Amino acid sequence: MKNVLRLEIQSRLDQLCKPPGSLGGLEALAARLAEVQNTLHPETSPRRVVIFAADHGVTCEGVSAWPSEVTGMVTSVMRHQRTASGVFAKRLSCEYEVVDVGLLNPLESFNNERHFINAARRRGTANLRIETAMTPNDFDHAWSVGVDRANAAADAGCRIVIGGEMGIGNTTSASCIVSLMTNIESSSIDSIVGRGAGVDDRGLEKKIAVITNATNRVRALKNVDAKRIACEVGGLEIVALSGFYTQSAQRGMTILLDGFIATSAALLAQAMMPQVTDNMIAGHQSTEPGHQRSLAKLNLSPVLDLGLRLGEGTGALAALPLLDLAATMMNEMATLEELKP
Amino acid sequence: MKNVLRLEIQSRLDQLCKPPGSLGGLEALAARLAEVQNTLHPETSPRRVVIFAADHGVTCEGVSAWPSEVTGMVTSVMRHQRTASGVFAKRLSCEYEVVDVGLLNPLESFNNERHFINAARRRGTANLRIETAMTPNDFDHAWSVGVDRANAAADAGCRIVIGGEMGIGNTTSASCIVSLMTNIESSSIDSIVGRGAGVDDRGLEKKIAVITNATNRVRALKNVDAKRIACEVGGLEIVALSGFYTQSAQRGMTILLDGFIATSAALLAQAMMPQVTDNMIAGHQSTEPGHQRSLAKLNLSPVLDLGLRLGEGTGALAALPLLDLAATMMNEMATLEELKP
Repeated sequence: MKNVLRLEIQSRLDQLCKPPGSLGGLEALAARLAEVQNTLHPETSPRRVVIFAADHGVTCEGVSAWPSEVTGMVTSVMRHQRTASGVFAKRLSCEYEVVDVGLLNPLESFNNERHFINAARRRGTANLRIETAMTPNDFDHAWSVGVDRANAAADAGCRIVIGGEMGIGNTTSASCIVSLMTNIESSSIDSIVGRGAGVDDRGLEKKIAVITNATNRVRALKNVDAKRIACEVGGLEIVALSGFYTQSAQRGMTILLDGFIATSAALLAQAMMPQVTDNMIAGHQSTEPGHQRSLAKLNLSPVLDLGLRLGEGTGALAALPLLDLAATMMNEMATLEELKP
Repeated sequence: MKNVLRLEIQSRLDQLCKPPGSLGGLEALAARLAEVQNTLHPETSPRRVVIFAADHGVTCEGVSAWPSEVTGMVTSVMRHQRTASGVFAKRLSCEYEVVDVGLLNPLESFNNERHFINAARRRGTANLRIETAMTPNDFDHAWSVGVDRANAAADAGCRIVIGGEMGIGNTTSASCIVSLMTNIESSSIDSIVGRGAGVDDRGLEKKIAVITNATNRVRALKNVDAKRIACEVGGLEIVALSGFYTQSAQRGMTILLDGFIATSAALLAQAMMPQVTDNMIAGHQSTEPGHQRSLAKLNLSPVLDLGLRLGEGTGALAALPLLDLAATMMNEMATLEELKP
């Protein structure tokens, strides 16, 4: 069935008024989009980016260039759609939603009206270096928040969804997840750990030590599955993203994947529901060294490689207009047949 | 003066609500755009793609996978904005103009109304392998057509212009120009010659032989400058593009450069007016092997590398939404200062 569709897609691409293959990566993207949507006429609107924000107890270890308070400050600016993801989304006619799933302090301006939602139960995780970051109940709640937001997007008719995140310290959490989900030994942890939002040399050293400690701690446990990994070293926004992806796939939406943190959540989702990757397109290649390995495990190739490392869904948003062009190509170009006089 | 602006741009980028440098290539693009427009608040609209179409006598040598007639057929479909460039431009709210500057046969539907213009005087070039492709008068006319279209775009308030082209056989002409303008010896011609719109092995062999013949012919001449090179081995659409770029720069517009053919025209423009490159941003890296060398001579780095090789302005159009995001970043994002409670 899938093979028949693939042949039809390729045939359609080759019939378009251009030398076969001359639109290179845009043709590959069009084919992927059509395959994900199971149609020769893919759609890229309506689309929505949903950003999950939460705090991380591990920040007390000095793993980030920024203090934990910045999570709430930046999320508060998101209310006015004036961070990078907000202004990009506006430019791209992409609906914008921000969900507090575990900020240390609730934001008054997030009053659940329109797309600014307070869904936190637990406020911040515990320090993953030394203890379980969240309970199974916390996990279930954060997951269900993601599921709810996917359902809301699907109910609104969205064809494409992007999951974004905001959480100072979350590259540490994501690095732990990637290390455990892709079986990276403690001795080569440094090969997947990057500077996140710009930590200095001393901070990077601390970060590697923390990730080594945390992953060793988890490796010493028995019967560790994806949910347990998420509870031990995850973030509430990462778990929400995993639930969001899983339900988005269930509801038949195309998932445009953002960078390193988003991809760590995709690894958890994949472990719980392997076919979730059938609905995914990787937006971009992040500069975080662990991102490439994660994408390989998901069997996805990134659309863009622009050296981005911001998160918030910005890498996926940057790729969104190329999905638009790919869809437009499939839907609106003349065929070679029409050239004939 | 330029250095002061550069510092101001960098300072603005670093003040935005994100870790410094975390938007990678988009920050570099924003800086370039701001520098080209000499402002901290660059604009990307209105924008216009102008496609110049012409035929090439050299097609009789079998250098292309397609017969010369296809130039007119495809250009005719452009009238309905249904080729790749047309549907991309529509999607991106980019004005669309197509100019016949030397098709073998005039198109009735190009009646000079709105943006479909018949400006051809000479219909097709001579066979550049054995003779001068066009006279100096032909050159002057084609150049002036490009200048006129730049003036029309500037008069309409365009901030960004893209030059595109359609002409079966024009990668042969462009390869000759690139070879002569970047001093590639006959013995290494094959390093810059590609398959254009998809010529087979036998055609590629012929193409390399034709380019070798033509460039040897020109190298044997005395007092050869850029205009002479264009007359000997150029295409009417390539010369029109050179005039278009030059005047676009004079009128202060930002030039978003397309692929291999467009870049060969940029090399001619650079030779006549070196500062024209100050207004250029390279949209993408084409798969044509000579493109990289041409961009190096222009001192430009491409925004995208998507394996495109279609022409018509499509590579530049694919990069256009990233210019939009770069401008939006500069103009609309909150600053870190605004984070403070």
